[in-house]
Amino acid sequence: MITDMDNFTLHMPTKVIFGRGTETGVGQEVRKHSGNILLHYGGGSIKRTGLYDRVVESLEKAGIKFAELGGVVPNPRLSMVRKGIELCRKEGIDFILAVGGGSVIDSSKAIAAGAPYEGDVWDFFTKKTVIKNPLKVGVILTISAAGSEMSPSMVITNEEGGRKLSARSDLSRPVFSILNPELTFTLPKKQIAYGSADMFAHIVERYFTNTKNVDVTDEMCEAVMRSIIRNSKKAVADPKDYDAQAELMWAGTVAHNGILGTGREEDWASHKIEHELSAAYDIAHGAGLAVIIPAWMKYVYKHDTARFARYGRNVFHVFEKDDEKAALMGIKETEKFFSSLGLETTLKGLGIGGSRFEEMSRLAAKPEPIGNFVSLDAGDIVKIYRLALG
Amino acid sequence: MITDMDNFTLHMPTKVIFGRGTETGVGQEVRKHSGNILLHYGGGSIKRTGLYDRVVESLEKAGIKFAELGGVVPNPRLSMVRKGIELCRKEGIDFILAVGGGSVIDSSKAIAAGAPYEGDVWDFFTKKTVIKNPLKVGVILTISAAGSEMSPSMVITNEEGGRKLSARSDLSRPVFSILNPELTFTLPKKQIAYGSADMFAHIVERYFTNTKNVDVTDEMCEAVMRSIIRNSKKAVADPKDYDAQAELMWAGTVAHNGILGTGREEDWASHKIEHELSAAYDIAHGAGLAVIIPAWMKYVYKHDTARFARYGRNVFHVFEKDDEKAALMGIKETEKFFSSLGLETTLKGLGIGGSRFEEMSRLAAKPEPIGNFVSLDAGDIVKIYRLALG
Repeated sequence: MITDMDNFTLHMPTKVIFGRGTETGVGQEVRKHSGNILLHYGGGSIKRTGLYDRVVESLEKAGIKFAELGGVVPNPRLSMVRKGIELCRKEGIDFILAVGGGSVIDSSKAIAAGAPYEGDVWDFFTKKTVIKNPLKVGVILTISAAGSEMSPSMVITNEEGGRKLSARSDLSRPVFSILNPELTFTLPKKQIAYGSADMFAHIVERYFTNTKNVDVTDEMCEAVMRSIIRNSKKAVADPKDYDAQAELMWAGTVAHNGILGTGREEDWASHKIEHELSAAYDIAHGAGLAVIIPAWMKYVYKHDTARFARYGRNVFHVFEKDDEKAALMGIKETEKFFSSLGLETTLKGLGIGGSRFEEMSRLAAKPEPIGNFVSLDAGDIVKIYRLALG
Repeated sequence: MITDMDNFTLHMPTKVIFGRGTETGVGQEVRKHSGNILLHYGGGSIKRTGLYDRVVESLEKAGIKFAELGGVVPNPRLSMVRKGIELCRKEGIDFILAVGGGSVIDSSKAIAAGAPYEGDVWDFFTKKTVIKNPLKVGVILTISAAGSEMSPSMVITNEEGGRKLSARSDLSRPVFSILNPELTFTLPKKQIAYGSADMFAHIVERYFTNTKNVDVTDEMCEAVMRSIIRNSKKAVADPKDYDAQAELMWAGTVAHNGILGTGREEDWASHKIEHELSAAYDIAHGAGLAVIIPAWMKYVYKHDTARFARYGRNVFHVFEKDDEKAALMGIKETEKFFSSLGLETTLKGLGIGGSRFEEMSRLAAKPEPIGNFVSLDAGDIVKIYRLALG
């Protein structure tokens, strides 16, 4: 048990450009870094909304040459990353502009890491080697969720084998991120709910720690969680509520840029348990988290009942003196929060049964047990999937 | 009246290296930027504590050539800045290592801004011109207070005329800051109290705003204020309490790096009113703030009683339904908090009378009224000084 604040390094050089209309300045911002870029995006939504046209106009006005690669899908694929790397090499590209959400940004970061590397880009994810001298990445964010817009990490799915793995480097943080909440006005309510669950989970993974005496960070975690709860409900109710969408966008960025994890051991078991789920069933990451987070909480809370009681009291305003009761009420409130956004909180609700629990648990605990708050092996993970069944 | 979150740009590229023993790696960190630096510090304390020797050893081990300039005083002087600029030019220096607190860091930033500039460095403070291409600055922090270790701003006193003015540029943010809470163990309790008042005031200046719907930032401001209150009391009671000093050091950095001011208009009247006080009487900045902040609050609270009531309730746990009463109780609690640290909360307590109120008020309101929460002219400022008299 660590008894006081851990040493830490925090380096978040991403320039945040936040607010209405900010995407129209993207050309000038890119110009500071490059004149020959890859424009990377997902499906057709950025063309439907007119965002694509505004971006292209701004790039052309700034005299920036660009190649295009669209078609990134949720749970972004290694094959797309390889295609991007090839294109960057062929065109002598040194900058990638990601226009989209976490999937597009993660795909961009992986391309940026892989392009200058002689070996196979998957090596960064299997931890065979570390990222060195990646290309630069800039972002125009279109969904508040993953926090990849200011984070050092990326998650890619290798479709040969269905494995979803992460890599991270401070060098992979975007050089700039343009955050215009108006770009989220056209999102389906379901997407807003998934995104809210994702950012909330990013804080849960940092909040439940064995490091004692990390008071500033604890307070800030609770502060941002409360704000996500309030504003996600408003944004789902009315996706054109600028204030709610703005708070959610900024909360999602702060949730994952590292500042809420300073000086403490983080957990990350729930994310790994969910990654196997979305790799196996190709569900949205946020949908999986809304199921896994409460199940994980039920399985581990006795490890530090007082901490879970504090969570219930400070995040959900549970008014209960008894720690055990307050802890359980906090977990119940977490489920209610996800439900209030229209999310399922059981695997059954998602139409998923128990047939692959053993296989997913083995993969999640490979090569070693996961989680720092409580270390979980394959046997534990099966039990968590069962608790999630509903 | 602005009704929703303002657009903003936030760029905090300072690499934070936090924890026990971290200063021993300073040579390697500097090496990434320069081989020929200015080592800038204050009085004799860094030599007495052995910090100076550790820094010099680390620099020498990394093969870094350095010139030295010590003797920075609180309310750092323009004459010292000019001396530093001359030295940098003579020795072809391109990096300044600040070992000390806010005064040393601010002096370093001003030298860094002035060295490559053809005109007079005071031009940046009179706003005649803006900072371009400053030298790089690195920091080893020895007191939790000013937040200059990650901020874009600096405050310098021009002793010809006794004016204390600020300048700011994102280019002036240090490239790295080494924050070892152990370095604050030897501080006099008074200094810890001054520092705590200073960082608390940095949040007050951001918290009281006319911008509505800045929920994430409001929540985070309150979170860090609560943490400062708790931990400053502990640190003053026992300066060798690592946990308390660590929280205070991180809180002081977060309080002023910009993240608690995102998306909102900030105030800064109290700082300007205090700057005239410490320029006139050469008192510690934190000592002046503990007097000015409550007086400012009493003068302006009716402008937004509900906001002050929220402050009382959320920061000081005031349990009172009536807004007017809760607001006044919050202000009273602010005074009690400063008193609990051993600080005076009246000018009389500091031995200062009213003889220079008119003169200081005129200077503070020059060239224009100050404050954004409530705009204050010289007539208002005199009244605030009078409220502060006690």
